[in-house]
Amino acid sequence: MDEYASEDQRENKAIASVIISFLKYEEYALREFHGLRVKKWESISDRQKSMIPNYTKYLADLKVAIEVNGKFFRSVAEWAMQSISIGPEEMVQPDDTDMNKTCSLLIQVYREWSTEAVSERRCLHSRLIPVLKALEPSQTNILIPGSGTGRLLVDLSRMGYNCEGNECSYHMLLVSQYLLNAGLTQGSTIIYPFLHSFSHWKGNEDQLTPIGIPDIEAGSSKRVMGPMSICAGSFVDCYGRNQGTKISSHYTFSQRMQMSRAKAENSKDIVITNFFIDTGPNILDYLDTIVHVLKPGGIWCNFGPLLYHFENDRGVETTYEVNPYSGFQDKVNDSTPLMGLELSGDAIIEIATKCLDFELMQRESGILSGYGRHVGLESCAMPGYMCHFWVLKWSPAGKV
Amino acid sequence: MDEYASEDQRENKAIASVIISFLKYEEYALREFHGLRVKKWESISDRQKSMIPNYTKYLADLKVAIEVNGKFFRSVAEWAMQSISIGPEEMVQPDDTDMNKTCSLLIQVYREWSTEAVSERRCLHSRLIPVLKALEPSQTNILIPGSGTGRLLVDLSRMGYNCEGNECSYHMLLVSQYLLNAGLTQGSTIIYPFLHSFSHWKGNEDQLTPIGIPDIEAGSSKRVMGPMSICAGSFVDCYGRNQGTKISSHYTFSQRMQMSRAKAENSKDIVITNFFIDTGPNILDYLDTIVHVLKPGGIWCNFGPLLYHFENDRGVETTYEVNPYSGFQDKVNDSTPLMGLELSGDAIIEIATKCLDFELMQRESGILSGYGRHVGLESCAMPGYMCHFWVLKWSPAGKV
Repeated sequence: MDEYASEDQRENKAIASVIISFLKYEEYALREFHGLRVKKWESISDRQKSMIPNYTKYLADLKVAIEVNGKFFRSVAEWAMQSISIGPEEMVQPDDTDMNKTCSLLIQVYREWSTEAVSERRCLHSRLIPVLKALEPSQTNILIPGSGTGRLLVDLSRMGYNCEGNECSYHMLLVSQYLLNAGLTQGSTIIYPFLHSFSHWKGNEDQLTPIGIPDIEAGSSKRVMGPMSICAGSFVDCYGRNQGTKISSHYTFSQRMQMSRAKAENSKDIVITNFFIDTGPNILDYLDTIVHVLKPGGIWCNFGPLLYHFENDRGVETTYEVNPYSGFQDKVNDSTPLMGLELSGDAIIEIATKCLDFELMQRESGILSGYGRHVGLESCAMPGYMCHFWVLKWSPAGKV
Repeated sequence: MDEYASEDQRENKAIASVIISFLKYEEYALREFHGLRVKKWESISDRQKSMIPNYTKYLADLKVAIEVNGKFFRSVAEWAMQSISIGPEEMVQPDDTDMNKTCSLLIQVYREWSTEAVSERRCLHSRLIPVLKALEPSQTNILIPGSGTGRLLVDLSRMGYNCEGNECSYHMLLVSQYLLNAGLTQGSTIIYPFLHSFSHWKGNEDQLTPIGIPDIEAGSSKRVMGPMSICAGSFVDCYGRNQGTKISSHYTFSQRMQMSRAKAENSKDIVITNFFIDTGPNILDYLDTIVHVLKPGGIWCNFGPLLYHFENDRGVETTYEVNPYSGFQDKVNDSTPLMGLELSGDAIIEIATKCLDFELMQRESGILSGYGRHVGLESCAMPGYMCHFWVLKWSPAGKV
């Protein structure tokens, strides 16, 4: 099998396992979130049962809400299956991680596609729009690594910008494909995004608040739109430097990716990282990649916290260099920790300005942003994250 | 071996494993937090190394800070070993959970015993003091379940109240024993409480801020103090009802505990739950226990979030009833889920007032409280928790 066919097969397998996790959501959530709580209720004494007379109704409502979410995930799966046929050899059973990712998608969809969460999206929007205003939309290429389910892409595309998203999670990608293309009308789909969290509620019924999505008709042709696309894969693999980056779980040496990276060089006017910069095992690879895709004079705009996803991960991966002439592997390290290099805000700005030819245009810290917070229950829910916002202009010496 | 001797042996074993986790802290933290990051730094390319010239100094400082924390934990362990001798058969190796608990103690000590964290302690203090003012200290018995390392106990005892703490974590108990009795002078011990968190920092050096503890000399006799004690064990086991509570991992049928519980009935004027009410697998057992220990007219004062510790725990335990006449086990359930019964704030107040004869005196929600937050870096660090405060008076019909 050639490189491309084998990659396609691997991709199909990954997509199939996500589709199956969507199909199994309802069964899983009924067992793990509802069923266990029914058992708990059954286990307590009659006296304690009489203390919580409304609890059985709450559990019944929880069940109905899970079923409604199940319907949403089945629709996404059915949509995805139009473009991929799952053979029996690809019927891998999703594991707990897959199922947890599926459950957490509900908050992501709420955050990106509901009227209720507009205040969360506005944290970035209100800061980004003035930066964009200086640029002519049709001549501006925007890249959004970690584009999630695609909302920011749609918003900027509607303003006429040329928008490219990039996302490595097939969970996100399949949902975004559905929300962008299935032609859902405003508020036509009901989800219960909060039901997987059992803490911090004012009333138990608040956990079971139904939310209508989407708040806008993404596929609607009523609005002028710039070209929009989403590239599947790791940011560093799809857009990184072809020289001087170590091969790792997020950077391969395949011909396809080398071509993708060569094409990406010097191609973007703006890179927008939104809750993204802290997601990888090597933030320096992210910085290198941003520089690689920017045109001279291009802008890196960042919003989000610095909550390093791998800070407590004791896992390791294999990394190595490839000799560009012989193709041989060099400096192989089969136990490179995933944790490490959790740079502070100041350190990132210092590297960008001192080593990578960026010029600091704007910086703001301490922006409190909710993340999938229930509107109207701010007094109970977790407050969210303290976010950073910065705008850096890439001004390599002698080029701008 | 009789019941008491066997219980003592089990207790000794648990204490021994915590002492060993203190002795092993330095080795563990150097390997898991420092060593892995050194390896990560070694694994990156020379080009990327040159982008972060200060990182090796940061790693060296991290190592020194871990060694300083190691010295603190060795002092606690040595103090504890004065009162318990560890035989070779008790030399059980601590597991990852034990080690994580040890690491997280640093934040607890910071929160309870530093000048810097006074604003966090004040969230409860400022609300509690007006409630206490109505009561004559020497005639007021206070119980604090989940008393942690003992700070609130000391503060109230210094005001002359009769204070009893209760704590089931030997990690907490050994540290509190040390801080309360080892005669530490103000600021004499340096710890680096923040070093185990690698996210959200403004500058990497902020993570390595040294803190001098304690802020007060706990054992000092200069101040008038009411009697103070700490009871080791689960709140429900030590203070719960002798009838109608199911046997579980946190409630036994031993003679010793039955006597403890009989003695506890109707004995307290105030129960103060501070970041406690959400910690158990059955909050109704906590409510029953609070009622059991209060005198008629007594007060339950609660502060903290509702972040249910077991909400995502898929573990199970065995629960059963014991027939008070025959001693036989009844209604045995060997798979009672730990999750479940995560009541909302409104639901707790409703049960207390409608089923348990409490009268609502005060209620406040949405109190933002940090939890071991670095003072001066509020713009980066996680904001903390939205806390509830309520004061309920137990007024059983016909008794008050």
